Amino acid sequence: MREPSQTSLIFAVIPANHSILFMSAYLEYKERMQQVADFRYSAAVLQWDQETYMPVKGEDARARQLATLSQTAHERFTDPALGQLIRDLTDHPGLGPTEAKNVIRSLEDYEKEKRLSPAFVRRLSETVSKSFQAWMAARAANDFSIFAPVLDQLVVLKREEADRKGYIDHPYDALLHDYEKGSTVRWLDDLFSKLVPSLQKILDKVREAPQVDNSFLHGYFPAQQQWAFGLAVLRKMGLDFDAARQDKSEHPFTTNFSSKDVRVTTRINEADFTSMTWSCIHEGGHALYEQGLPETQYGLPLGEACSLSIHESQSRLWENNLGRSLVFWESLWPVLLEHFPAHFKEVTPQQFYKGINRVEPSLIRTESDELTYHFHIVVRYELEKRLMDKSLSTKDIPAFWNEHYKKYLGLDVPDDRRGCLQDVHWSHGSFGYFPTYTLGSLYAAQFSQSSKAAIPDLEAQIKAGNYQSLLGWLRAHIHQYGRFYDSEDLCRKVTGESLNPDVFLDYARGKFGGIYTLSPDF
Amino acid sequence: MREPSQTSLIFAVIPANHSILFMSAYLEYKERMQQVADFRYSAAVLQWDQETYMPVKGEDARARQLATLSQTAHERFTDPALGQLIRDLTDHPGLGPTEAKNVIRSLEDYEKEKRLSPAFVRRLSETVSKSFQAWMAARAANDFSIFAPVLDQLVVLKREEADRKGYIDHPYDALLHDYEKGSTVRWLDDLFSKLVPSLQKILDKVREAPQVDNSFLHGYFPAQQQWAFGLAVLRKMGLDFDAARQDKSEHPFTTNFSSKDVRVTTRINEADFTSMTWSCIHEGGHALYEQGLPETQYGLPLGEACSLSIHESQSRLWENNLGRSLVFWESLWPVLLEHFPAHFKEVTPQQFYKGINRVEPSLIRTESDELTYHFHIVVRYELEKRLMDKSLSTKDIPAFWNEHYKKYLGLDVPDDRRGCLQDVHWSHGSFGYFPTYTLGSLYAAQFSQSSKAAIPDLEAQIKAGNYQSLLGWLRAHIHQYGRFYDSEDLCRKVTGESLNPDVFLDYARGKFGGIYTLSPDF
Repeated sequence: MREPSQTSLIFAVIPANHSILFMSAYLEYKERMQQVADFRYSAAVLQWDQETYMPVKGEDARARQLATLSQTAHERFTDPALGQLIRDLTDHPGLGPTEAKNVIRSLEDYEKEKRLSPAFVRRLSETVSKSFQAWMAARAANDFSIFAPVLDQLVVLKREEADRKGYIDHPYDALLHDYEKGSTVRWLDDLFSKLVPSLQKILDKVREAPQVDNSFLHGYFPAQQQWAFGLAVLRKMGLDFDAARQDKSEHPFTTNFSSKDVRVTTRINEADFTSMTWSCIHEGGHALYEQGLPETQYGLPLGEACSLSIHESQSRLWENNLGRSLVFWESLWPVLLEHFPAHFKEVTPQQFYKGINRVEPSLIRTESDELTYHFHIVVRYELEKRLMDKSLSTKDIPAFWNEHYKKYLGLDVPDDRRGCLQDVHWSHGSFGYFPTYTLGSLYAAQFSQSSKAAIPDLEAQIKAGNYQSLLGWLRAHIHQYGRFYDSEDLCRKVTGESLNPDVFLDYARGKFGGIYTLSPDF
Repeated sequence: MREPSQTSLIFAVIPANHSILFMSAYLEYKERMQQVADFRYSAAVLQWDQETYMPVKGEDARARQLATLSQTAHERFTDPALGQLIRDLTDHPGLGPTEAKNVIRSLEDYEKEKRLSPAFVRRLSETVSKSFQAWMAARAANDFSIFAPVLDQLVVLKREEADRKGYIDHPYDALLHDYEKGSTVRWLDDLFSKLVPSLQKILDKVREAPQVDNSFLHGYFPAQQQWAFGLAVLRKMGLDFDAARQDKSEHPFTTNFSSKDVRVTTRINEADFTSMTWSCIHEGGHALYEQGLPETQYGLPLGEACSLSIHESQSRLWENNLGRSLVFWESLWPVLLEHFPAHFKEVTPQQFYKGINRVEPSLIRTESDELTYHFHIVVRYELEKRLMDKSLSTKDIPAFWNEHYKKYLGLDVPDDRRGCLQDVHWSHGSFGYFPTYTLGSLYAAQFSQSSKAAIPDLEAQIKAGNYQSLLGWLRAHIHQYGRFYDSEDLCRKVTGESLNPDVFLDYARGKFGGIYTLSPDF
């Protein structure tokens, strides 16, 4: 699946009279790109440490260290000499397909990144560090007003970033594009306008039906047992722990410093079995993608994930399509009982399956069910859109948030911690990230469908505890390509069609129709 | 103790007609230096992670990331523009004493560092990373031959470094100078020729006396209890855990990413109470020094420790002069019994004090007593000296090691793990480091004596569990100065005399004479 000596193989077919020059130009491009990656991955190590282990007083020095690394990565990448090298290599007939694609992607990135200045990159990085610390403090105090001033500085910078990067219709488009190439407010408005009413219809149906029991998911689940269980699940999923590790953080995330050093984090709520479990599986899905990227392409576009929505398709496929399926839990049942013998001894896998899929509007996105999840995303999408076009100010975020949670989910938000302070994303400057969760779920439904078509006995294999065919299929059809294809090209190549929300909606109708025994008229 | 706005205060006295130019030149110098520090501290984060948490397969990418950071720090520091700035600022009457000293120290560093090329720095960094991994593997397999090939590459590079840096008498001098400015083979040969026979004499006396009992230090000391105890001791010592943390590693070390983010590590042997305990106190002494450096001088010489021997004086003062004293353990007795109620209930502080000071030749340097410790150093010193002048080859290290352990300590070394693989230093490329442990012990004895003279009731305070006067004295007389003074200048300023091994020897005679009830004729 990996391509160990691809580069040299492809160079071997370059016509002899060109070979020396191109080898040297491509190798110089590669070395420069890998050094840029060294700075970026080093920054990722410092960020990982900041979110897992760093003592609080380390924050000022860390902020400037991260700023220097970000600025240097930016300066090295936007060095005109590298830009010239990329342009010289673009479309050159002497390059093999892998090399040519790397160069094309680098040119896209270069054109985008050179619109930012080193000073802007430094300022943004410093503000993100301050912002993360403020978010941590605000969460601890359960008070948005602690976060608001620095968040406002960040929003101003993100608007500036949008202006620098450029857009046609809406400033938010420039940021959306960073996470999902080509995605725009117009496209997402259209997508959500189809998705939301259909989800609402399913949700209404479900709410008319008798509620399923999930009381066994609440109680006292000791942290140590949860931790051990989470690791056991990740191992069963196929995560290579010689090339990964798990730690704890305020908000779960996955990062990596190469495809051989992937870090996942989780958090534990001892009163709730679900909080850690599905966050582990979700981050595990991300981590398996990173471990499946070609090691030989370190620092080059083809060594990176296709896009954030495809990344989310992997995490959400493992978390939901697999991780909330009956066969998966049938296969894991002995592992579950081994770690929690008392908790689940009276529960059957069938009851468990229903319980973990209980549909119920709730306050926390990461712990919500597969249906109401997307309402959480819509709230964030609508909010970010307005922040970016200035029709909403930072200080009004809690009011907007609470109003829209009432509108979409019918809930009163009791405090900021369970409201607009719940996600780490804004403190990272990640505006435009949230919609990729919904896109990821839609792609995941399509990929899941295709994997079942490709592997006829897949369900039986999973029930038997063998997830390796599925992982192998994901590696062969998605992971190994890195950024070779765009999301939509990849989706078409793998599934035969573009993004199609109906696949997800059909999956949801089938799944929740079964769990809630609904009549098939919706 | 800290000097919060020292820089601006000193600028205020610069004559008005010079002030703008000098302020801007000094501020540019400072910003450039701080960016160099950002790269170095970032590399330190990556190294800390490498030794504490990094999964094994992360090593290749980590090696190149560290190499890129080291090379960049070197390139930025040896940038001729920075060199010119430093030269322009040197000896300028407009600078205050702090600024002037920073500039002088930077010039010394600049002249030394520009003798290395960026390519050499990169190669050295890559070899160190490989070497650390090989050392880990060799330790796990208890087989020096796994470490030997890459260690040999490193020795060749260190000889090249010595040649590039230059020396008068002996290549080892160039490396010794890095850890302790001005120290040479000639000086150390002379020092050890005085120290070793005197120590030998004390040791011979001790070995004629009846041995003290330390059986209560061996048994089963559960890792979790040791860990909690170690943290409790570090807290009592005054380590600020909002600006520090402790983790585990193969070999204990202290590193820092600013004076507000200090990391100590330890290792636990469940069969032995001493291994972790005094390593914690030792690293805690280093960490207190780092926390006491002036925060405003981040990235500048005065924000760094005076020298490695002064650093070791701090760790060894806490570990030995305080940490193996009777009053210290009288004060810690309730904490000890709280963590190990069963282990020490039959032991008195007096017996404990004797037991922890039992003199006995042993194989592991970090676990040896205060007397035989220096024989461990002499073996390493003699060995490194010969490695550097090529009279010893890397492959012959185990034979040399074992022969000299027999000669100095009368011991047969059973295997490499308890022999020449026990220390991490060589795998870090740290040749010339070991002698600073002995220098540190000698300085520690002098500092300890001076602190007692300065604080007449110090012993009573410590017995009462109050170590803050001692810490305050160290902060005021040593820590706050950073690299303002050289080791010897600092020693004279604090104690009224230069390095004087007799102070340590008198301390040792007094202490072990008491413990072993020796007649006062040695």
